[in-house]
Amino acid sequence: MKMISNSVKNELIRVVGAKNASFSREELVCYAYDATNKLSLPDAVVFPSTPEEISLVLKMANSEGFPVIPRGAGSGFSGGSVPVEGGVVVSFERMTKILEIDTENLVAVVEPGVVTWDLQQSVERLGLFYPPDPSSHRFSTIGGNIAECAGGPRAVKYGVTRDYVLGLEAVLPTGEIVTTGVRTAKGVVGYDLTKLFVGSEGTLGIVTKAVLKLLPLPEATKTMLATFPKMTEAAKAVSAIIRGKVIPSTLEIIDRVSLRCVEEYSKTGLPDVEAMLLIEVDGPKDSLERDCRTVEAICREHGGADFRVAEGKEEVKKLWEARRSISASLYRVKPNKINEDIVVPRSRIPELVEGLGKISAARGVLIASFGHAGDGNIHVNVMYDKKSAAEAAAAEAAVTDVFTLTLSLSGTISGEHGVGTAKQKYLEMELSPAAIEAMKRIKASFDPKGILNPGKIFPKAGAKTAAAGTKAPL
Amino acid sequence: MKMISNSVKNELIRVVGAKNASFSREELVCYAYDATNKLSLPDAVVFPSTPEEISLVLKMANSEGFPVIPRGAGSGFSGGSVPVEGGVVVSFERMTKILEIDTENLVAVVEPGVVTWDLQQSVERLGLFYPPDPSSHRFSTIGGNIAECAGGPRAVKYGVTRDYVLGLEAVLPTGEIVTTGVRTAKGVVGYDLTKLFVGSEGTLGIVTKAVLKLLPLPEATKTMLATFPKMTEAAKAVSAIIRGKVIPSTLEIIDRVSLRCVEEYSKTGLPDVEAMLLIEVDGPKDSLERDCRTVEAICREHGGADFRVAEGKEEVKKLWEARRSISASLYRVKPNKINEDIVVPRSRIPELVEGLGKISAARGVLIASFGHAGDGNIHVNVMYDKKSAAEAAAAEAAVTDVFTLTLSLSGTISGEHGVGTAKQKYLEMELSPAAIEAMKRIKASFDPKGILNPGKIFPKAGAKTAAAGTKAPL
Repeated sequence: MKMISNSVKNELIRVVGAKNASFSREELVCYAYDATNKLSLPDAVVFPSTPEEISLVLKMANSEGFPVIPRGAGSGFSGGSVPVEGGVVVSFERMTKILEIDTENLVAVVEPGVVTWDLQQSVERLGLFYPPDPSSHRFSTIGGNIAECAGGPRAVKYGVTRDYVLGLEAVLPTGEIVTTGVRTAKGVVGYDLTKLFVGSEGTLGIVTKAVLKLLPLPEATKTMLATFPKMTEAAKAVSAIIRGKVIPSTLEIIDRVSLRCVEEYSKTGLPDVEAMLLIEVDGPKDSLERDCRTVEAICREHGGADFRVAEGKEEVKKLWEARRSISASLYRVKPNKINEDIVVPRSRIPELVEGLGKISAARGVLIASFGHAGDGNIHVNVMYDKKSAAEAAAAEAAVTDVFTLTLSLSGTISGEHGVGTAKQKYLEMELSPAAIEAMKRIKASFDPKGILNPGKIFPKAGAKTAAAGTKAPL
Repeated sequence: MKMISNSVKNELIRVVGAKNASFSREELVCYAYDATNKLSLPDAVVFPSTPEEISLVLKMANSEGFPVIPRGAGSGFSGGSVPVEGGVVVSFERMTKILEIDTENLVAVVEPGVVTWDLQQSVERLGLFYPPDPSSHRFSTIGGNIAECAGGPRAVKYGVTRDYVLGLEAVLPTGEIVTTGVRTAKGVVGYDLTKLFVGSEGTLGIVTKAVLKLLPLPEATKTMLATFPKMTEAAKAVSAIIRGKVIPSTLEIIDRVSLRCVEEYSKTGLPDVEAMLLIEVDGPKDSLERDCRTVEAICREHGGADFRVAEGKEEVKKLWEARRSISASLYRVKPNKINEDIVVPRSRIPELVEGLGKISAARGVLIASFGHAGDGNIHVNVMYDKKSAAEAAAAEAAVTDVFTLTLSLSGTISGEHGVGTAKQKYLEMELSPAAIEAMKRIKASFDPKGILNPGKIFPKAGAKTAAAGTKAPL
């Protein structure tokens, strides 16, 4: 591990204050990981409170040559916030203010350390709505959500984080503070730096303020549940619902393995069936009854049984708690899993489901699938025990198969988690060399010394990568 | 004007075929202008039919050093498609196919030369909806809409072109053909090149295919009209409607000057009042009556009179024809106008209106305002006669005043038209030097020889520009 010099330490303390810089191993361990459970210690962590402080840290990084890694809650699934080359972690624990909620223009202005859920609760009290809802939204931060372009169940109707970021204040890797974008839906002056920053995984700049679009809170919501004797029929129902002109606010699919695991864990009374759809519609009260009837009819056409509209807030809450605990409860089957977040056009989900069955059989691994079927974003969990080298190898091979299948169905290998370090070696399966080179040139134009969140997205020269893929044309 | 050599001419003919290349002055004149009426002749125009042909033209441009200018319908308001430095115009008249309308995944795949209206009609026949509706939508093309990030009245509810572009095929300035993005709402693999291309005014790549998001066609629409004795009251009603949780599909404001001009021209029977709002709501049938009542109550609270829900398709059509003819009919007052498309947060429109009155009085010029009040995008038309040097100078000074006012209200100097050549000299009023430098580095990273649509967006070194502005913080 590279070390930072004592003079750098002293300078960091001078910039943020002694209370707001830490170099002790006990504390550094807390900033060494994310949800991938890969660990890599930084050399320091700082807790700035202004963009000016961050600018000074970045300028120092350029002159001294150490990495800087921005970090929200560390809840990402791709290694985006892991300091894989050491360096200085910039943590936003002191930049957690909701600066403004503008009820006239439906805009919120926040610091990057605001927890997504806190923003959502604050705007909902005013009858407003911030839709992006990654499963981590109770603890993940807006800054992290922007870095990874977080999605969630509501994307089928409401889109993802990129659709809600109107403008940013950011510190460029070379230390300049810029503001991008506008406070309005329209604005076309210069290149769209705002959207370029969204999803750039903290490699192009450090966001210090975000202007977010809000919507009026939908008047009412209905939650429905339907079970299916076949996973492919449930998948077909998903497509048919949208073809039927109902865009649910969420449309989740859960397979048998996932259902069993979560039921053992949560005792919610989930049925023992091949597949379940969890469907929510929202909007003006008057129109929801009709939407429910349309959804019910389509589910029944596809063999759906036990169709039920959930009664009361408690039942809805229980259902969503069960849904959100799937990921954790899968460990009941196997001690390890590779959790992928592939996306296919929703009409291809039945083919995906069939293909996953074949991969599972061919590689001899258990695959549990659930997720945001409405937008085609399925969480595919390849279960294994890492103590068995054979199981680990089979799981790894199955993942490559899953990506090949996904790309052949005009999909993408990551819908919400990002590339980080987790998907680096698969990047060339999805993107052409020309596209990757264009992205690398953008990175170099922002960060000529490569000090901001290095070692992410792009595979290292000479690293072993998966073979270039057979992505179907757009 | 630079000339292209005979060997380049022959090579262009070889690439696209003799029928699909033109060098005659008569034809070149047709590719020399846009809606700004600035004229600059190209040296050649080619009509390719594949990205491969465009790639060869761009590679030649790099080795021979001539400009290449992509061109849709030439209906832009900022000079984006004008070949200001000569060169080869790439026109999309042969790339006009709607390749696919995918009713299951709500996606259309089109070539760049498709006229926006043709796409809209085609998807509406299938019960689907492509919302972006620039005033030019009957003749402007999807390629041009993407280059400028076209907006329109429906942006208040549905957003702008950038919100509907999921993926692209594009030829980079250096000739590589890339595909970007996905066919789904989610996708986070690598930097968001798709959104970077949108609104980049044809300076970063030439789009050859676009994957567009569609929505289900709203079940019903209601069109309303209200008149106001004061422009500021009409502006306050705009904000109050959205605060009242109704997001109209369009919410247009028209001032007295505009009303009078269009009435003289169209004889629609428009009232002689200070201001009018034209409001549309759409959605499930059951909820529209209530929306209309909410809108009516709010209009009346703000002094709105003559509130009326339009009856039947014919009246709605007539109202929209009148609305769309405002821009042209303003020439009844003065032979020349400077048409700006500034945006302010909608709650600031009353201040904008007052400020415009003061600028008009101080500079002694007539200002007509109308436009998309719902999203804060007001078309401010400074009227003058260019034969009078004094009037022209006053108009020019008034425009700078308008931009200063707009930026002080947290606005932007262009909501839909782009910078092109028209707003180059004002760029530094809105963007900081650091942001402009970052954009220039992106441009250089894509187009090291500066051959693609040169002379746009960024002011030339040494050019006279407006003083850096006093933009309010985000």
